[in-house]
Amino acid sequence: MQIAGTKELFARRSAPPGSHPGTFVLPPDTHSTSIRALIYREERSEERIVTSSEELATAANAPGVTWIEIQGLGDGSVLHWLRDALGVHPLAVSDLANTGQRPKFEDYGERDLIISQLVLANDDEDVSIEQVSIVVGPGWVVSVLERPLDVFEPIRDRIQSGTAMICRMAHDFLAYALLDAVVDSYFPFVEQVGDVLNDIEEEVTGRPDQRSLNQLHAVRRTLLTVHRVMWRQRDALSQIMRDERSPFGEAVRVYLRDLLDHAMQVLDSIETYREIGVGLSDLYYSSVSNRLNEVMRTLTVISTIFIPLTFLVGVYGMNFENMPELRTRWGYYVVWAVMIATAAMLLLWFRRRGWLERTGRPVRRDEE
Amino acid sequence: MQIAGTKELFARRSAPPGSHPGTFVLPPDTHSTSIRALIYREERSEERIVTSSEELATAANAPGVTWIEIQGLGDGSVLHWLRDALGVHPLAVSDLANTGQRPKFEDYGERDLIISQLVLANDDEDVSIEQVSIVVGPGWVVSVLERPLDVFEPIRDRIQSGTAMICRMAHDFLAYALLDAVVDSYFPFVEQVGDVLNDIEEEVTGRPDQRSLNQLHAVRRTLLTVHRVMWRQRDALSQIMRDERSPFGEAVRVYLRDLLDHAMQVLDSIETYREIGVGLSDLYYSSVSNRLNEVMRTLTVISTIFIPLTFLVGVYGMNFENMPELRTRWGYYVVWAVMIATAAMLLLWFRRRGWLERTGRPVRRDEE
Amino acid sequence: MQIAGTKELFARRSAPPGSHPGTFVLPPDTHSTSIRALIYREERSEERIVTSSEELATAANAPGVTWIEIQGLGDGSVLHWLRDALGVHPLAVSDLANTGQRPKFEDYGERDLIISQLVLANDDEDVSIEQVSIVVGPGWVVSVLERPLDVFEPIRDRIQSGTAMICRMAHDFLAYALLDAVVDSYFPFVEQVGDVLNDIEEEVTGRPDQRSLNQLHAVRRTLLTVHRVMWRQRDALSQIMRDERSPFGEAVRVYLRDLLDHAMQVLDSIETYREIGVGLSDLYYSSVSNRLNEVMRTLTVISTIFIPLTFLVGVYGMNFENMPELRTRWGYYVVWAVMIATAAMLLLWFRRRGWLERTGRPVRRDEE
Amino acid sequence: MQIAGTKELFARRSAPPGSHPGTFVLPPDTHSTSIRALIYREERSEERIVTSSEELATAANAPGVTWIEIQGLGDGSVLHWLRDALGVHPLAVSDLANTGQRPKFEDYGERDLIISQLVLANDDEDVSIEQVSIVVGPGWVVSVLERPLDVFEPIRDRIQSGTAMICRMAHDFLAYALLDAVVDSYFPFVEQVGDVLNDIEEEVTGRPDQRSLNQLHAVRRTLLTVHRVMWRQRDALSQIMRDERSPFGEAVRVYLRDLLDHAMQVLDSIETYREIGVGLSDLYYSSVSNRLNEVMRTLTVISTIFIPLTFLVGVYGMNFENMPELRTRWGYYVVWAVMIATAAMLLLWFRRRGWLERTGRPVRRDEE
Amino acid sequence: MQIAGTKELFARRSAPPGSHPGTFVLPPDTHSTSIRALIYREERSEERIVTSSEELATAANAPGVTWIEIQGLGDGSVLHWLRDALGVHPLAVSDLANTGQRPKFEDYGERDLIISQLVLANDDEDVSIEQVSIVVGPGWVVSVLERPLDVFEPIRDRIQSGTAMICRMAHDFLAYALLDAVVDSYFPFVEQVGDVLNDIEEEVTGRPDQRSLNQLHAVRRTLLTVHRVMWRQRDALSQIMRDERSPFGEAVRVYLRDLLDHAMQVLDSIETYREIGVGLSDLYYSSVSNRLNEVMRTLTVISTIFIPLTFLVGVYGMNFENMPELRTRWGYYVVWAVMIATAAMLLLWFRRRGWLERTGRPVRRDEE
Repeated sequence: MQIAGTKELFARRSAPPGSHPGTFVLPPDTHSTSIRALIYREERSEERIVTSSEELATAANAPGVTWIEIQGLGDGSVLHWLRDALGVHPLAVSDLANTGQRPKFEDYGERDLIISQLVLANDDEDVSIEQVSIVVGPGWVVSVLERPLDVFEPIRDRIQSGTAMICRMAHDFLAYALLDAVVDSYFPFVEQVGDVLNDIEEEVTGRPDQRSLNQLHAVRRTLLTVHRVMWRQRDALSQIMRDERSPFGEAVRVYLRDLLDHAMQVLDSIETYREIGVGLSDLYYSSVSNRLNEVMRTLTVISTIFIPLTFLVGVYGMNFENMPELRTRWGYYVVWAVMIATAAMLLLWFRRRGWLERTGRPVRRDEE
Repeated sequence: MQIAGTKELFARRSAPPGSHPGTFVLPPDTHSTSIRALIYREERSEERIVTSSEELATAANAPGVTWIEIQGLGDGSVLHWLRDALGVHPLAVSDLANTGQRPKFEDYGERDLIISQLVLANDDEDVSIEQVSIVVGPGWVVSVLERPLDVFEPIRDRIQSGTAMICRMAHDFLAYALLDAVVDSYFPFVEQVGDVLNDIEEEVTGRPDQRSLNQLHAVRRTLLTVHRVMWRQRDALSQIMRDERSPFGEAVRVYLRDLLDHAMQVLDSIETYREIGVGLSDLYYSSVSNRLNEVMRTLTVISTIFIPLTFLVGVYGMNFENMPELRTRWGYYVVWAVMIATAAMLLLWFRRRGWLERTGRPVRRDEE
Repeated sequence: MQIAGTKELFARRSAPPGSHPGTFVLPPDTHSTSIRALIYREERSEERIVTSSEELATAANAPGVTWIEIQGLGDGSVLHWLRDALGVHPLAVSDLANTGQRPKFEDYGERDLIISQLVLANDDEDVSIEQVSIVVGPGWVVSVLERPLDVFEPIRDRIQSGTAMICRMAHDFLAYALLDAVVDSYFPFVEQVGDVLNDIEEEVTGRPDQRSLNQLHAVRRTLLTVHRVMWRQRDALSQIMRDERSPFGEAVRVYLRDLLDHAMQVLDSIETYREIGVGLSDLYYSSVSNRLNEVMRTLTVISTIFIPLTFLVGVYGMNFENMPELRTRWGYYVVWAVMIATAAMLLLWFRRRGWLERTGRPVRRDEE
Repeated sequence: MQIAGTKELFARRSAPPGSHPGTFVLPPDTHSTSIRALIYREERSEERIVTSSEELATAANAPGVTWIEIQGLGDGSVLHWLRDALGVHPLAVSDLANTGQRPKFEDYGERDLIISQLVLANDDEDVSIEQVSIVVGPGWVVSVLERPLDVFEPIRDRIQSGTAMICRMAHDFLAYALLDAVVDSYFPFVEQVGDVLNDIEEEVTGRPDQRSLNQLHAVRRTLLTVHRVMWRQRDALSQIMRDERSPFGEAVRVYLRDLLDHAMQVLDSIETYREIGVGLSDLYYSSVSNRLNEVMRTLTVISTIFIPLTFLVGVYGMNFENMPELRTRWGYYVVWAVMIATAAMLLLWFRRRGWLERTGRPVRRDEE
Repeated sequence: MQIAGTKELFARRSAPPGSHPGTFVLPPDTHSTSIRALIYREERSEERIVTSSEELATAANAPGVTWIEIQGLGDGSVLHWLRDALGVHPLAVSDLANTGQRPKFEDYGERDLIISQLVLANDDEDVSIEQVSIVVGPGWVVSVLERPLDVFEPIRDRIQSGTAMICRMAHDFLAYALLDAVVDSYFPFVEQVGDVLNDIEEEVTGRPDQRSLNQLHAVRRTLLTVHRVMWRQRDALSQIMRDERSPFGEAVRVYLRDLLDHAMQVLDSIETYREIGVGLSDLYYSSVSNRLNEVMRTLTVISTIFIPLTFLVGVYGMNFENMPELRTRWGYYVVWAVMIATAAMLLLWFRRRGWLERTGRPVRRDEE
């Protein structure tokens, strides 16, 4: 479970220090742009491919609700179109281009900007965070994704079905639906983290090695980042709800409250997982130190028994001419007896101290 | 003391991402549903089994206070009845179905939703958390339990007795009584945690092994989860008290304040236990490291005494032809004398450093 | 310095879950009850022993200020008298009976309830916390102690002297004086903790053993509990000061502010002690690990010197027929010279690395 | 990545205790002063070198916006000029001189003082923090740098180009642009920290040594200081935005909000890095303790195998006359057989316990 | 850097529990009292020695500003004079006597009490905290020091010079000047802590021993106490600024804001030092564990090489009659060859594992 490396984490594609505020710099590897406008009212809906600034203005001003979905920024001309044809504020446009923004809600008169972050947990345990920018204008909503993703497909299908509730609501409900899809993307992630932590827990209480710890470290770092992102998201959502100038009408507020509740549920899960992660680290260190204890006890028991015996046999290996014991008939056997008695006594002493018991391997799965 | 595994902790039975808000998905293993309506006013009370949407509406509109107790969700049709016959908001209905919600209070006009969580501490030390959903309408209260539990039996008995205070109060007092039963369920849990921590403390200060630590880990994780749930519960309760549109009248507020106080008492206990848990972890690690110290000291004392002696006897085991000492009359005895003196000096030195004292086993129970 | 065990800490003598709110259950080991009414105005004061509900009502309604001091709950009938004769709210009465409450201030119309907690630090280092409940009615104050304690004797003496300021003030000043006595009970406790921590510090920097750590653990747990209690007390006090419906008049407010200040001083001391406790734990672990280091260094120095020497003498203990060195005249002496040189070189190497210095015993008291 | 030493960190060049408030003391090593006034309106701009109090007043009062850029404090006479010719408050002047101030915004009537801190991350990994003081008067802005730095060059260029937006805005936009340049200086620093942490992570998971830890310690300390500075900066910025008497007009507020957002982004990054730093410390300790484990296991395996064998050969090195085994034909070979069997059994036992596996070296890069 | 011991830290010289509020108890070792009144207006100033209650009243009521400086409490009669002649509230008087109070601001009508704490860092690294109490009445200010200190000398000099700004301001500026002197006393302390931490850092990264740790422990405890005191001081200052009934006029508020800023700067420094202290502790433990690692590695390398060799020579020291190798011509030399080869192989294996490198001594100063 690995999020992007430390270095990439905060790679901010912004203009160089000192340049004019509102300037935007496109990332070096932009995806080619795709602009689709979906205009709907009640059961009717129409989809257009937008290829020019004029078409964009026409689509946005069409009667009904217009959803302009932008995927990929291409050469950035679409950003100029947004500024010129739809009247989006230059600072907002620069935020659309500079990905890696914090989730936020900013009120630019009648063109409100909502920045949010999607989490994608792939099967090969790579986690990535994608910026979703939403501009809410009068009667239209623009959503900007930096690369083609199908997160909004279900919403498109619902609109085109012509019967879903969304068709009968205003454009603010569309904006809500997009945000809802973003927050929903965290639930599979949370579930996956639960699975990974479960696996790590089994390893740690079983046979812990450095790899488990490295994995745990990666998971904790991922949780740290996602927690921060979600926290900001929650802030932005509750700001939207409190702000009386926000573009969301009374009818949609109850849904936003539900959305906020989902966000807090995700936060709760992440916080619990973070604390579980701390607990697992502790368990790991305890397991490791238990193994060291066991190793040292083994060494001590063996050494303590044999070192005195070796000394004893050394004594009778000396070559003094005058060593009367050597010439006795039973000397050899007496030495053996003494040695066996010494070893037995030491073993008894060790048992009394509990050093012969084995405590190194966790016993959780067997005994609980 | 073990709560459900990490994996199950946040298993959220919600609709797939992108689906329409308010959609609900029933859990795969629902219990068959049982709907009982208890209609009471003063000393009269009547209990009905509800089997259709119409019966539900009739019961709710009956004069007096109606308590509709739902246990198990069955095929989910009861949820549709709630929406259609009683006018419960679709988002509220979806929260009833999707268990694992955070405790909360949500105001949907005259149909207020209260989600709370019950804790069940079984004798075999399994702890489970059960969602209790309460919908408060005009003159009626719906309580939803996901599986048959007898937590509300005492309330039913009090109502049917006809003499308890609850019979003379409005439906908001019934809602309060249900919440009171939920919060009361935490006290046996708190007591049980106290017992378990006491046992662990005795083990840790006595003869600590990895099992104590694993148990402690489980208790701490359980406390972590229950703390989070109770914290949200307290939030919801104080929100109910502050909200002037909440369904609770002035007469019931003083009881709610008492309830909030109980909730804070539970929180206090849990927080104290969590800090005690941290302290026990520290004690455990200290005990373990003390044992390692003792083991190492034993090894060092034995080795340090015998290694030089073994060297000495090795010297006189050499086979040089010209070793004058070997041929002296008292050489052998002199060597013995030297060795005994060396050992005695070393022992003295060890005693002076305090290495012969035994500090490994905690002495708390004997000496304090 | 030991507070009651984990188990007893939160033993809440409350009614079983689901029972009617306001029910009270008497503890199994109540002390026999003693009710004294002290009625005073200016320099006159009269003391009565109260034995019935009627006498209670008469005393409370007597002109002047009436202080009803209850010690011990007996069979609980006094609680019924309070409810019936003085009009105390049932929930308040149940809080009087269920000891182990959190300190709090609750406004029940003209009968306000103040729950506070006294700390008793005995000479044999047992610390106990006792609930003091105060009910403030119109013209009278009831104080409830669960068992006979003499904390309020100085106040009684001051009243009976007839000249103290308290005699000229209204009943709210009496309530303040009682609270002041409760908060003052923490100062001797704080002083005692200081002494104990001083002793532990000397042990830890001198010759640390597991017993010091266990003692430290007990002190920290005691501080944890007392801190929590005092924190709640401070909350309750500042709530009393903010609440414009509180029974305390303007003239007494300045004294309450002084009292709040004392409470914060106690909190400050406890918080500082808690951090000092953490520091002492760290010092202990450092001392222990230093001793382990010293032990290991001793073992290593001895082993590293003698193991090669023992090998060498072993070589010349071999019985090969063709070992030319054995037959040389000076072989034996050359071997000794080699061995002495080796040992000297190793000792030199150890000294250069600083392994022969002694760092195990803390040097604080000698060198600072 | 090393910020100035602990000692220099808080070297406050302030007047001695007890001296008159508002007194300023110049640092011992001031740079010679350079004062440039840039007067601009729309596309016209004029730059003057200021050398006297009168020239300063004339420049400030010139029509259009005047930017007075001061680099170096010289003999401090410029500070007197500011006080006398421009009417800057004495306390504000003393803050200009006493560098090492906390970032803050102070409202002195129409001469507002903004203290902020620039971060400079050099290539040789030395980080320094430089105070930037800005005084905003009516129609003019004074910026004070303690030593010559080129951070404001891009702004000067933009103004002199005559076409940038800044030329058409009032003096408050100039103050904003200066603050924007200050905050922008943190982004290269953040990026550099990311690189350094990446390097340290590779070392720690590879072959950790004390140097990595010392480096990590230095980075964490730098982050600690920069975090504190940035935190205060954010406070000052949000205070400027909230304060209705702040010199920033409505038109500039939306830019300030963007600036505040950048500041929070920097804070987010720093906080994440700090937590990553903690994680790396933990990984380091774990690696070190793993290596110790491996070392001890090796010692134990070798010792445990050979110590008994050495004892055995010692037995048959004894010189007793009556040792029948010595005279048997196959005794020697039997001893060998016994020794090999013993060693094999011990090895088997070790393998079963997993002691022969190697877990010391982290495996992250190979296996993940 | 050592503050008073744990025991003395909270020695509160207050009246026994239960005594009348407002009672004061003088410390057992009061310094003899010295009362000086300084009456000034513009350039005129007059100093009087006050020896009676009447002189006190006369001086306070003299036209102009009167500063009454009390050093030492003597037999406490001065406290009675304050109460009787100047009308200071009894609770305020009791706070003057009971030193060890928390810094605070209390509003007693027109006689406001400000308690603050001075820090004194002596050259022999003893740190002490002294209470400074200030009472601000109409036209006069009383300052109380418990023992003779010269902290206020510079202010007296400034007043007597007749030209300083303070001479032209009202009595509230005098109170501010006293507070300013108190806060200024923290800057030398902060600087000294920086020096001490620098020294400790050098020791810890160089050759750490237990003494460094004890010193660090003392510094951290001192910082803990001073932080708490300064924190309360800041609270009191900001309370003075917010309180519209505070005795400070509009003209002095801007100076108070500057003072508050200084207090926050001190707090910032102390907090940074506290975190640096934590970092140094970690470095210490890491250094110690590195040394242990080095010791163990040395032992293991030596043991692992010589233990097998010693076994081998033991084999050929056996006295079996039938050991064919003993009688071969080159047996002895073959054994030597085998032993040298074994040792070389082991050394190679150790080098490959990196055990022969030396990582124990920190390399910071050489390599960075």
